[in-house]
Amino acid sequence: MLTASYVGDGTLKVAEAEPVAPAPGEVQVEVAYVGICGTDLHILHGAMDARVAMPAIIGHEMSGTVAALGEGVTGWSIGDPVTVMPLAWDGTCPACRAGHQHVCQHLDFVGIDSPGALQGRWNVRADLLVRLGADVSLQHGALVEPVAVAVHDVRRSEVGLGDTAVVLGGGPIGVLIAVVAAAAGARVLVSEPDAGRRATIASLGHETFDPTAGDLVAHVEAWTGGAGADVVFEVSGAAPAVLAATAVAKVRGTVVVVAIHPQPVPVNLQRVFWRELRILGARVYERADFERAAALIADGSIPADTMITAVLPISEVAEAFASLESGRAMKVLVDTQAVPA
Amino acid sequence: MLTASYVGDGTLKVAEAEPVAPAPGEVQVEVAYVGICGTDLHILHGAMDARVAMPAIIGHEMSGTVAALGEGVTGWSIGDPVTVMPLAWDGTCPACRAGHQHVCQHLDFVGIDSPGALQGRWNVRADLLVRLGADVSLQHGALVEPVAVAVHDVRRSEVGLGDTAVVLGGGPIGVLIAVVAAAAGARVLVSEPDAGRRATIASLGHETFDPTAGDLVAHVEAWTGGAGADVVFEVSGAAPAVLAATAVAKVRGTVVVVAIHPQPVPVNLQRVFWRELRILGARVYERADFERAAALIADGSIPADTMITAVLPISEVAEAFASLESGRAMKVLVDTQAVPA
Ligand SMILES: [Zn+2]
Ligand SMILES: [Zn+2]
Repeated sequence: MLTASYVGDGTLKVAEAEPVAPAPGEVQVEVAYVGICGTDLHILHGAMDARVAMPAIIGHEMSGTVAALGEGVTGWSIGDPVTVMPLAWDGTCPACRAGHQHVCQHLDFVGIDSPGALQGRWNVRADLLVRLGADVSLQHGALVEPVAVAVHDVRRSEVGLGDTAVVLGGGPIGVLIAVVAAAAGARVLVSEPDAGRRATIASLGHETFDPTAGDLVAHVEAWTGGAGADVVFEVSGAAPAVLAATAVAKVRGTVVVVAIHPQPVPVNLQRVFWRELRILGARVYERADFERAAALIADGSIPADTMITAVLPISEVAEAFASLESGRAMKVLVDTQAVPA
Repeated sequence: MLTASYVGDGTLKVAEAEPVAPAPGEVQVEVAYVGICGTDLHILHGAMDARVAMPAIIGHEMSGTVAALGEGVTGWSIGDPVTVMPLAWDGTCPACRAGHQHVCQHLDFVGIDSPGALQGRWNVRADLLVRLGADVSLQHGALVEPVAVAVHDVRRSEVGLGDTAVVLGGGPIGVLIAVVAAAAGARVLVSEPDAGRRATIASLGHETFDPTAGDLVAHVEAWTGGAGADVVFEVSGAAPAVLAATAVAKVRGTVVVVAIHPQPVPVNLQRVFWRELRILGARVYERADFERAAALIADGSIPADTMITAVLPISEVAEAFASLESGRAMKVLVDTQAVPA
């Protein structure tokens, strides 16, 4: 099998390796497709070197089929189509004891803190598997993880039928949040500077706005009849968007912080106070979000084909990362079984 | 009667004036005591000159008795002890229509946007009156407004029995939040640099911490068994406290923004994301908060005598402001009926 490892210095190394038998409690998955996300790019850029043990096989958005069962594993058969919810918690910290295992204080994020899916055969704890419908294409199945992020963000926002939702940033997660929020009954507006991304979003039936060409605050004010938006999702990671988020939210409105802001950024707390806003952090997903995401993929609620910009063989994993880096692709998948030409 | 007006340039002017009869729908209140708060200091410093129509009779924390009834006013008798909830909303904006009148988008804050209580006789809309218990001292009654702020902040936080609450800033509002949160069953820790204020807070039975002399984050970590605090109230208005607030909150914990931060301040959104925190703005109070505050004053739940540092005649209103300015007083009351010596 082939593996792709981050070895430091902005480098991914593709190598041949022999599969290892799964340990007790593990399943060996024949990995089909692996999606690349912003976190993977951060790793490649060295931003997470303190956390990642090199050489690191990364990748945490995936689909595949069960290839072998370790000792004691029940409930799975060879050939079952699966994805993996890549969170392993300790079960003992205060967050876990309070029922918030997905944000365990000692969370092992599989594919970051432990080996991930960019390999032909991947041994993974059986309890992390999530079943894919038999009719779901494995390319679509690789989208369950990012869809689960969007499901979690939308559930956390408590956006409801007829509510207005502004999404700041129309990259892959922003688009999925727009899709899921609309499926939850919201009216959605996506603010995104890239014209190509705006065109994609518009093709999915969502309103868009170019924040470089107009006044977003005035636009949302008019769009909401002077009230401001019920919910705002900050997905861009850009500091000006953080100020925009509080500016466009209605009295008692909700701002969901989805993006990573590595350094403290200025927040208009006067506005938070004045309008009694609610700012919510939202990170990864709970098991229920993951299963709902799989169901949304299965029932066609997610425009999966539109989301997948390219599929590249694992031998071209560097090109896959570069394509996402460009800022114009939505999802780029890596085919871990493709034989190099 | 005497009036005290803000006339600009950091100046309060005390003058004689003739009382005017109340208009239809108004009640004339013989004002007994007026509390001075941080907002009044902001006005005196000129920070709100764009909003205040000078000369401005300010003052919005008060007690008094009904002295005369305007045409059409029912339900009140001469001599009834009262306080005033100083919020007048338009009833028509999106916030009002959604039921959030107290944060109306066109709120008239009485005593800031329209004439306030620093006058011997004050004509005020009858529907803004709140009844004081017959046994309540009028000095204590002047504390209902700031207690209502604390009740609102604590209700908004959803702090519950046995929860841990950290209050950042032990001034008058911080102390009242500590008292009300403790009455709601919380374990409370107040972080306050001033030793005199810490001593007052400790005398009320609350734990204190000097943030200039130790590591608050480590202290709260130990105090909460490694979890972090359930609720944090940011009452200080200091930028470092905003970073401390997210640092000491538990996974899924709540930070309530009580203080005014005129400029955007750095917030650790990475921590908000990582721990799925909730940041809530909390401003003024709803009618229910005001009535509960009056009940807490009446039943002795509020250490009113401890809260009142000094009572000065209206002729010495400038000294009353200076006393609060020192940062060591809790509440300073102005006696609007006192005859100058
Ligand atoms: Zn845990
Ligand atoms: Zn209104």
